Amino acid sequence: MRVRYFEDLAVGQSFTSPTLTVDADAITAFAAEFDPQPFHLDDEAARGTMFEGLAASGWHTAALTMRLCVASDFRPAGGILGIGGELNWRRPVRPGDALRIEIEILETRQSRSRPRQGVVTVRVTTLNQHGDVVQTFTPNLFVDRRPDLP
Amino acid sequence: MRVRYFEDLAVGQSFTSPTLTVDADAITAFAAEFDPQPFHLDDEAARGTMFEGLAASGWHTAALTMRLCVASDFRPAGGILGIGGELNWRRPVRPGDALRIEIEILETRQSRSRPRQGVVTVRVTTLNQHGDVVQTFTPNLFVDRRPDLP
Repeated sequence: MRVRYFEDLAVGQSFTSPTLTVDADAITAFAAEFDPQPFHLDDEAARGTMFEGLAASGWHTAALTMRLCVASDFRPAGGILGIGGELNWRRPVRPGDALRIEIEILETRQSRSRPRQGVVTVRVTTLNQHGDVVQTFTPNLFVDRRPDLP
Repeated sequence: MRVRYFEDLAVGQSFTSPTLTVDADAITAFAAEFDPQPFHLDDEAARGTMFEGLAASGWHTAALTMRLCVASDFRPAGGILGIGGELNWRRPVRPGDALRIEIEILETRQSRSRPRQGVVTVRVTTLNQHGDVVQTFTPNLFVDRRPDLP
């Protein structure tokens, strides 16, 4: 898979990832470290909550999404360097869910502050094995410009 | 610390957390699992990048921020249940940084879809030991309404 410079990226291009399955042990281990709330730690305790059963922390879903970005065919020059954006959790991620992502380029523009980089806005959609959207994230990324251009 | 129902929360209230220190091993372990890019994995490799040295994955900063939210004096009824919001990374997190958060309530409103819950918009600001802002996140949260109210 080739690395793409800022000049190689255009609105409407899209990219995909392999699939990554998350099990109950991974969900509870992540939660114990970063988001120790009952609905992310224990299926029984989660039954009486809004989640109605064990659900991954949204931050676990977000971290797995990043892993899928790195494993995807989207290879911006300089790496995947997010500045931030709008992050939304649409549905819970459950034990056994197989996640994959779709990345679409929404906008590209020159960086005012960094002449050797461009800013690329992408939509990263995380889906489960049923095709349900579990998360969307719309970050701005810094992408290196082609070095042989003026 | 008392649990706060939706009716107990008001614009302008603020909350704080203890401090959490992140070391190089934690930064590289998180990156190896979720964000395996050179600038998050190896100080030497990171020197030639925009980060100019080892920096935590933004998702690691976000996950540590969630941990600090759970450890803070902000105890919404039903748990800290984020729907999503605007997430921005302002500065890199470095080995040895001691992080803490400030939470401020920006808006409260009834939930249209969930009569037993309200929606509360908060700003979660993550700071390092120098008082520099490393991340901001402005999520909407579901918070349970006081059960003895009509």
